[in-house]
Amino acid sequence: MKIGLDVLGGDYAPNSTIFGAIEAQKTLKDDQRLVLIGDQQDTVERLKQAGANPDNFDYIHAPDAISMHEHPTKAITQKPNSSIAKGFELLKNGSLDSFASAGNTGAMLVGAVFSVKAISGVLRPAIATNVPKLKSGFGILLDVGANADCKPEMLNQFAILGSLYAEHIYGVATPKVGLLNIGEEEEKGNLLTISTYPLLKENNKINFIGNAEGRDMFTDFADVYVCDGFTGNVVLKLAESFYGITLKKGMKDDFFDRFNYEQYGGSPILGVNAPVIVGHGISTPEAIKNMVLLSRDMIESKIIDKIKSAFN
Amino acid sequence: MKIGLDVLGGDYAPNSTIFGAIEAQKTLKDDQRLVLIGDQQDTVERLKQAGANPDNFDYIHAPDAISMHEHPTKAITQKPNSSIAKGFELLKNGSLDSFASAGNTGAMLVGAVFSVKAISGVLRPAIATNVPKLKSGFGILLDVGANADCKPEMLNQFAILGSLYAEHIYGVATPKVGLLNIGEEEEKGNLLTISTYPLLKENNKINFIGNAEGRDMFTDFADVYVCDGFTGNVVLKLAESFYGITLKKGMKDDFFDRFNYEQYGGSPILGVNAPVIVGHGISTPEAIKNMVLLSRDMIESKIIDKIKSAFN
Repeated sequence: MKIGLDVLGGDYAPNSTIFGAIEAQKTLKDDQRLVLIGDQQDTVERLKQAGANPDNFDYIHAPDAISMHEHPTKAITQKPNSSIAKGFELLKNGSLDSFASAGNTGAMLVGAVFSVKAISGVLRPAIATNVPKLKSGFGILLDVGANADCKPEMLNQFAILGSLYAEHIYGVATPKVGLLNIGEEEEKGNLLTISTYPLLKENNKINFIGNAEGRDMFTDFADVYVCDGFTGNVVLKLAESFYGITLKKGMKDDFFDRFNYEQYGGSPILGVNAPVIVGHGISTPEAIKNMVLLSRDMIESKIIDKIKSAFN
Repeated sequence: MKIGLDVLGGDYAPNSTIFGAIEAQKTLKDDQRLVLIGDQQDTVERLKQAGANPDNFDYIHAPDAISMHEHPTKAITQKPNSSIAKGFELLKNGSLDSFASAGNTGAMLVGAVFSVKAISGVLRPAIATNVPKLKSGFGILLDVGANADCKPEMLNQFAILGSLYAEHIYGVATPKVGLLNIGEEEEKGNLLTISTYPLLKENNKINFIGNAEGRDMFTDFADVYVCDGFTGNVVLKLAESFYGITLKKGMKDDFFDRFNYEQYGGSPILGVNAPVIVGHGISTPEAIKNMVLLSRDMIESKIIDKIKSAFN
């Protein structure tokens, strides 16, 4: 197993990524190799300085970084030696089994869609994220930004993608799917959700339980919340800001702690032909470590094969 | 001045509405008459029981209630003696200067749009709500549910409505307007927000400051946040649930306290030919009192005339 990690991605890279890689590697088995993609010599130097054995890792030399504010498509095309472009090149040709980066989300999305490509039958891949439940555990929310405008058929597919992710990565049996909406009744909503409801209702690959409202998001109502990428992105950033506010105010609480992205490492791009994970720009070593472990879980669970089966 | 209040609207009506009316009346001037719309005899009885002088109020006998789950249009049409139908009848013919209810939001919206009607030039009225700012005060968010699907021209008008409300009701000079979106840059967003941005930029009736993201909502970024009614409703219910969670967990804090809908009383339907306010279903006497005082402020500020001027 080859787990690809972008050493140059994230606001605190390369230190955060290398420290995170060191911690992750300690928990990996011998046949689970962590492949560090970045400036090889610099990476080896930093590993040594941190007291880690460079032989415990594999390397891909990719000295160029794509910054957070570069145009995704341009950057990927014009920087073939960037860590993100290299990562996708190797993921596509099978040299890597997964690729994760806390770098430019747009570039990760472009790379995933244009190099690894969507799974046959999947209209549009989606980015999924975790939303904590008040009592314990968390639900999955998707899409949170890959598709600002969606069609009902896309939301119907997101429901399948999210359900498979909840089931095979988090062990939720027959995950409950809720359609994020503005009323409980079937006929409530905007044009998109009103048209999506009957598709979800008839979809026998999922356990659809009806409309969810903003107020249900942190309850046990559903395990998977489906919405367009615009709504999901607004919700995600709003929830993150609440978490930030509770942190600033020094409010320690089990529920608020579960908003911490660090513990689940990153957000998968679901619906492409390989495990691809996008980390938060402000990823700490702890977040990077968990992003690597999530990569491993996605490979081990054969989630990509499960998704392929569901769409074929 | 005649301030109309639906005595039968809200989960705890008529007690909550009558107790709220009594408190509100104490702060009103002699020429500011509170008109109680509901079962007149029952209302007078309850006022007496509560130790209030029934002569301090005016009455409209409307014994029928429209429940929370009735179909708005049907209910309004089929129950001419309901408090909501009567309220709008009197508002339309000028016997009332404002109408407020904590009852069926849909019925309030239907009544406002079909009886009082949209101000000439206003494409679609919107429901506005308050969102607390972390430091102090609050911003205005609209639309939060009147229009699940919006066109760019509507959002551009919401910006004017929200700005006038912030300015004339809350005294914010040249309110900053933010477009709720999923990126800072002008070209980011969904089809709606991308098309709305240039309209806002060219709109010389507002102080547009650019795109706002979910994370900006509780900051000092803007005074007015503009979005479609689907997004706004999801955001509103999510924010309310956060507030509910902090309450349940016993977290007392100045910022969280400002989420309390009770203190601002209700959400105005902006863009119709009279002040119309919708209260929260769970309105307490305190909320009802503040809804009455907000009604008075809307009448006194001549906000309807300001809106008419802006659109003509």
